[in-house]
Amino acid sequence: MSGAPAPLQTSALIIGAGPVGLFQAFQLGLLEIDCHIVDALPHAGGQCVELYGHKPIYDIPGTPATTGRALAQALLQQIAPFKVPMHLGSQIETLAREPDGRWRAATAAGQQFIARTVFIAAGVGAFVPKKLGVSGAEAFEGSTLFYHPGELSRFAGQRVVVHGGEEAAVETALALVGQARELWLLHRRDAFRGDEATVGRLRAQIEAGAIRLVVGQPGAFDGRQLVIATPEGQTVVLPLEALIVCQGISPRLGPIADWGLALERKQIPVDTERFQTTEAGLFAVGDINTYPGKRKLIVCGFHEATLAAWAAAEIVFDGKVPPLQYTTTSTRLHTLLGVATSAAHPD
Amino acid sequence: MSGAPAPLQTSALIIGAGPVGLFQAFQLGLLEIDCHIVDALPHAGGQCVELYGHKPIYDIPGTPATTGRALAQALLQQIAPFKVPMHLGSQIETLAREPDGRWRAATAAGQQFIARTVFIAAGVGAFVPKKLGVSGAEAFEGSTLFYHPGELSRFAGQRVVVHGGEEAAVETALALVGQARELWLLHRRDAFRGDEATVGRLRAQIEAGAIRLVVGQPGAFDGRQLVIATPEGQTVVLPLEALIVCQGISPRLGPIADWGLALERKQIPVDTERFQTTEAGLFAVGDINTYPGKRKLIVCGFHEATLAAWAAAEIVFDGKVPPLQYTTTSTRLHTLLGVATSAAHPD
Repeated sequence: MSGAPAPLQTSALIIGAGPVGLFQAFQLGLLEIDCHIVDALPHAGGQCVELYGHKPIYDIPGTPATTGRALAQALLQQIAPFKVPMHLGSQIETLAREPDGRWRAATAAGQQFIARTVFIAAGVGAFVPKKLGVSGAEAFEGSTLFYHPGELSRFAGQRVVVHGGEEAAVETALALVGQARELWLLHRRDAFRGDEATVGRLRAQIEAGAIRLVVGQPGAFDGRQLVIATPEGQTVVLPLEALIVCQGISPRLGPIADWGLALERKQIPVDTERFQTTEAGLFAVGDINTYPGKRKLIVCGFHEATLAAWAAAEIVFDGKVPPLQYTTTSTRLHTLLGVATSAAHPD
Repeated sequence: MSGAPAPLQTSALIIGAGPVGLFQAFQLGLLEIDCHIVDALPHAGGQCVELYGHKPIYDIPGTPATTGRALAQALLQQIAPFKVPMHLGSQIETLAREPDGRWRAATAAGQQFIARTVFIAAGVGAFVPKKLGVSGAEAFEGSTLFYHPGELSRFAGQRVVVHGGEEAAVETALALVGQARELWLLHRRDAFRGDEATVGRLRAQIEAGAIRLVVGQPGAFDGRQLVIATPEGQTVVLPLEALIVCQGISPRLGPIADWGLALERKQIPVDTERFQTTEAGLFAVGDINTYPGKRKLIVCGFHEATLAAWAAAEIVFDGKVPPLQYTTTSTRLHTLLGVATSAAHPD
């Protein structure tokens, strides 16, 4: 592991920054258990943001209506007092027990974690981008080929081709206007998805010449030139410095299947007292787990995360679990949350 | 039962209108199971409103900060589409199985329910008012003696004594200014609890003579006169038409202990698949139940109510349980909730 960063030591490692993973951090925080969160996506919120960011959700208790994005924001606000380190855009590849009983996890990029407890809150799996269907393209990933990049400043001054027709592609192209030296948007047809205002802005930028639209399918890529077949049967060759592919992100169970957890239909069996897997100190919460009565609902994941946090406290504090206190009355919890105990009338 | 109203037929009867009872109605509503809610208190919200109505709550997932009262309001808003009949100020006294397997429940006032399923969401028990510690006073309950009345219009034009020093007493006295013909406030000492503005309004009304303050302890009550012992050892006799005692409300398990449920430390044991008691069709959710891992937290009750609703669906629909649908995407659920399916961008 020469050159790799030093392993991060933590009481708890949460795999997945969806709503249940975020609430897991909240419940651990109330118990004064430090944790790190890792998620394959470049942002928190998991499938809530990825699949229904702007769609309504009506069944979060006490929240008559919200959206995936608003729920993720509310949960981020709720855990803010705990200053949880988030490792976004990182996927845990390996997970194995150390001789001392702790867990060693490592991301694809080589970041290691040594954790007393691990919470798999991976939902339907890690969201991974749909890859460019061009043979040999993988050789250029990270140099001139990028999938759904979160940060766009590296593309300033470059000749950039954005490939895709979904909202993410449109938004990426729009964000690069004025940054990229030359900017193309490549899609198989001249129609784009997204909210009307966003697509309207795209049309205006195409009209203004700031974004050059190319309709066609990529056929070959050598890292410097993209060969495109148009619907009319012509071939277009685009020289470029960066090819950004935004063809969508979909979930893959991925390496979790290799962790020896006796999956049942891609779900991890857990008990209902601790939401622990067959391995002590390894918990599974939210859509990824299964037990008698399981329903894949966010409200159930919140409960699972709560009991799993208490079970983890037994391990982290060597059996000395703190008493249950209430956020309404506990001065200790108020201090942890950074709220004044005297602030008793917020409504 | 001559003179008693006809039994109400329902698929589900929820005992308790606290947050978990209210969310129980929501989950039943999504499954198109009709229900009634009964609660001993004159308002919805249970201990949430009764014990910490104005106090902060920080651990409802997705709600960084709320209060008991605000949480109850949000849940009432959430169940509004289902138009659930609420029987407030009513306590279920008896619960027994009918020969056909359904449940027959009756309130203290004689209202009967025939229900396919029953959900005990009674928290720490029914909230009952602290009684006046004067022998023989019970004979006057409902004629000239009242405990924490919700509706005050009946006292218009009367000589009224309000007894108590907590916020409920202060608010009741203030609400009666201009309604009662003569108005006294009796408390054992000249100090009152409540938020500063409310106590300030009380002081102003005392100053103005609209409320007459009497410091002392009630010693005897014959239904028409209250004999009060002052701290100075004097006796004051107050003639009155109504004595309103607001000395606080505290929970009592009450008749639930008589329903044959093999309580463990005043908790009802349930399984974690259905949150069902030892009796089929009789569920217990929220603080009143117990199972391995149980924590008395609202977030856990929300999950319990969710799985209990699905278990009830098996009974109510004779095994034909509808598929799990999501409020984000299901047109059927949108219709039930009275929201437009096209309203996909509320944020």
